[in-house]
Amino acid sequence: MRTVYLDNNATTRVDPDVVRTMLPFFSDQFGNPSSMHSLGASVGASVGKARRQVQALIGAEFDDEVIFTSGGTESDNAAILSALEVMPNRAEIVTSAVEHPAVLTLCAHLERTRGVKVHTIPVDRRGRLDLDAYRVALTPKVAIVSIMWANNETGTIFPVAELADLAKEVGALFHTDAVQTVGRLPIELKSTAIDMLSLSGHKLYGPKGIGALYVRRGVAFCSLIKGGHQERDRRAGTENTPGIVGLGMAAELALKFMEDEATRVRSLRDRLEDGILQHIPNSFVAGDPLERLPNTANIAFQDIEGDAIPLLLGRVGIACSSGSACTSGSLEPSHVLRAMKMPYATVRFSFGRQNGEADVDRVLEVVPAIVERLRGPGRRSAEDRQPGPCLGSTRTGSS
Amino acid sequence: MRTVYLDNNATTRVDPDVVRTMLPFFSDQFGNPSSMHSLGASVGASVGKARRQVQALIGAEFDDEVIFTSGGTESDNAAILSALEVMPNRAEIVTSAVEHPAVLTLCAHLERTRGVKVHTIPVDRRGRLDLDAYRVALTPKVAIVSIMWANNETGTIFPVAELADLAKEVGALFHTDAVQTVGRLPIELKSTAIDMLSLSGHKLYGPKGIGALYVRRGVAFCSLIKGGHQERDRRAGTENTPGIVGLGMAAELALKFMEDEATRVRSLRDRLEDGILQHIPNSFVAGDPLERLPNTANIAFQDIEGDAIPLLLGRVGIACSSGSACTSGSLEPSHVLRAMKMPYATVRFSFGRQNGEADVDRVLEVVPAIVERLRGPGRRSAEDRQPGPCLGSTRTGSS
Ligand SMILES: Cc1ncc(COP(=O)(O)O)c(C=O)c1O
Ligand SMILES: Cc1ncc(COP(=O)(O)O)c(C=O)c1O
Repeated sequence: MRTVYLDNNATTRVDPDVVRTMLPFFSDQFGNPSSMHSLGASVGASVGKARRQVQALIGAEFDDEVIFTSGGTESDNAAILSALEVMPNRAEIVTSAVEHPAVLTLCAHLERTRGVKVHTIPVDRRGRLDLDAYRVALTPKVAIVSIMWANNETGTIFPVAELADLAKEVGALFHTDAVQTVGRLPIELKSTAIDMLSLSGHKLYGPKGIGALYVRRGVAFCSLIKGGHQERDRRAGTENTPGIVGLGMAAELALKFMEDEATRVRSLRDRLEDGILQHIPNSFVAGDPLERLPNTANIAFQDIEGDAIPLLLGRVGIACSSGSACTSGSLEPSHVLRAMKMPYATVRFSFGRQNGEADVDRVLEVVPAIVERLRGPGRRSAEDRQPGPCLGSTRTGSS
Repeated sequence: MRTVYLDNNATTRVDPDVVRTMLPFFSDQFGNPSSMHSLGASVGASVGKARRQVQALIGAEFDDEVIFTSGGTESDNAAILSALEVMPNRAEIVTSAVEHPAVLTLCAHLERTRGVKVHTIPVDRRGRLDLDAYRVALTPKVAIVSIMWANNETGTIFPVAELADLAKEVGALFHTDAVQTVGRLPIELKSTAIDMLSLSGHKLYGPKGIGALYVRRGVAFCSLIKGGHQERDRRAGTENTPGIVGLGMAAELALKFMEDEATRVRSLRDRLEDGILQHIPNSFVAGDPLERLPNTANIAFQDIEGDAIPLLLGRVGIACSSGSACTSGSLEPSHVLRAMKMPYATVRFSFGRQNGEADVDRVLEVVPAIVERLRGPGRRSAEDRQPGPCLGSTRTGSS
């Protein structure tokens, strides 16, 4: 059975060119970049090159604004915790109701254990940020605003450049989780007021376990992981050199392919949405129809619960995600959908570099029958309810 | 020029079998282990296997006592910060003067910013822990003891099982940084009172950017990096699956080869030490001659400063480390050597799986002339002083 992979917001297949770039750094150029001898020095040069490749992708002014981390979650944690540390006189955070758990779980913890006040800005039914509430929350007590560039479930894009300008006015730092955006939309950080930005390798055809945090020059920063002097004292630990050069190559490829790819996946995505909406009654697209990632389709099917559709699609070799929460086995909608007042769990199809027309055709071939069966007399059978492994970040809610 | 790599305490060459094990997880089994679909589930099973491979290497009772992290530094940070979080009524830490910066830098930060009291236990001239001072520091105010199993510079082994028993008596948690020990000495955690243990992939022929933290079942734990529910809520972030399966295979190989390898590298190491001590006057071995890692030779050459020898050895293709500090270009001895009252920087030769007799011969062939030249009339010329890149964890002090 050929697999149709439509879960590129969860993770992507590493590009073969990226793997090729990484390989020598395991057993050949395996030196520690911090070592004095030549085996270390040459690796250090490759790390520098990767930093410039990432710099180019996000349009940063200086290469030393890029800090390599272990991934998007670490970057998000590092940004927020650093802000609280470097601005001890400010103890409030502004974030949104639809952030990734990498931001929301940390914020909840800080609220509980450190008395930090967290303002969680709501969104409307289309997932758009409540700008009035945002303006009200912004005061000189705010240390950091952390608002995502694009949402992982719905693809909805927030106007982060404008949000950053507003944050500046009250002297707050502005961080954006751009894990789903980097490599998909053009980014030119140097022409914005964004102070920090998180990205993750495995969302852009790079490896898992590597990411980066952009920190604008001049912004004080306190490292999350402390130890040796790696990354100019901003992230301790022996550098993940294969991961770093892999991310660098992934960034270079993303920059090269971005424009064509955006056009291509948008047309695939739109064809899928049109096909479903046309043939399946009471189905609709969730998220902002205008400001949306080109690759993401988040589709609600009225009266069908939880992860029923992704489960059945999985059995015929189609990988996608369910927008259900995954707390103690419940099948209620994810926190993103709930924030949008969406009563049903949705199905997320997320396209990527390796998808083609045939993938859309295959989904359109099988989905109508599945929906009919799930809505039909008898509804969901016991067998259909057999749950998949529910390991937390399973659902769109956390990937 | 053939390179003689004698810097295995800084990092190791990834075993080709480890690379082979990792490869499919980049572009074939690239699924997110948290995903519901089969592409995710099969990867989840491989992560489980790796966890059991690590469990076996460290003799843990349960596989769920192994948490995958991004490396030794993160594991050290996570252990110490968790202890302070889960034991809010205790605000003291006991550690040693010769720990890795991953422990010491964090402790210094906690002392400065959070009012934590840190007891830094001294060592004697051979690098052995002052047990009396240790006993005195242990009171019911101590949240956690963090003392390394073996030192990265000298190879000196601390009696961690006994130290853990003493810590238990006052109800403190006991953590050990075993980054240099795991894979080199047999470890059977289940028969000790050790609560937490750090290890790192790249020190045992596994990849960089992956490590693990052992947390004994029943020990409360608060995750350093917060977000999704990965690693049973103890380490958020999409799993570095190639890194994890690579570490698993590295652990399996280490367990298989450990005994033979220890004997083999010990004989190489001893031959190197004997050769140097015999032919070079005023040279001596630093560290505990009895309780020492079999692969590590830390040799002091009286009257020769800083990194002169490693620098010249580097030019003839021999990679080793200098025991000098690397703070703002100074060439004074590292914190470990200073704690041992050692007046000179030393040279660290650390052997590994890929070394053979020829490597020892090569060092013995060139070192006497280098020492003679450095000690001779005129001493170190300007050219010899040309520093290598000094990037922090460069020196033995932090790797
Ligand atoms: C929006 C967003 N932020 C953060 C993350 C976390 O990134 P990582 O899995 O690399 O830790 C993800 C993906 O899981 C994401 O989609
Ligand atoms: C004793 C010791 N602890 C911790 C570390 C840090 O490990 P990592 O480089 O994997 O972060 C090292 C190596 O650099 C080490 O030798």
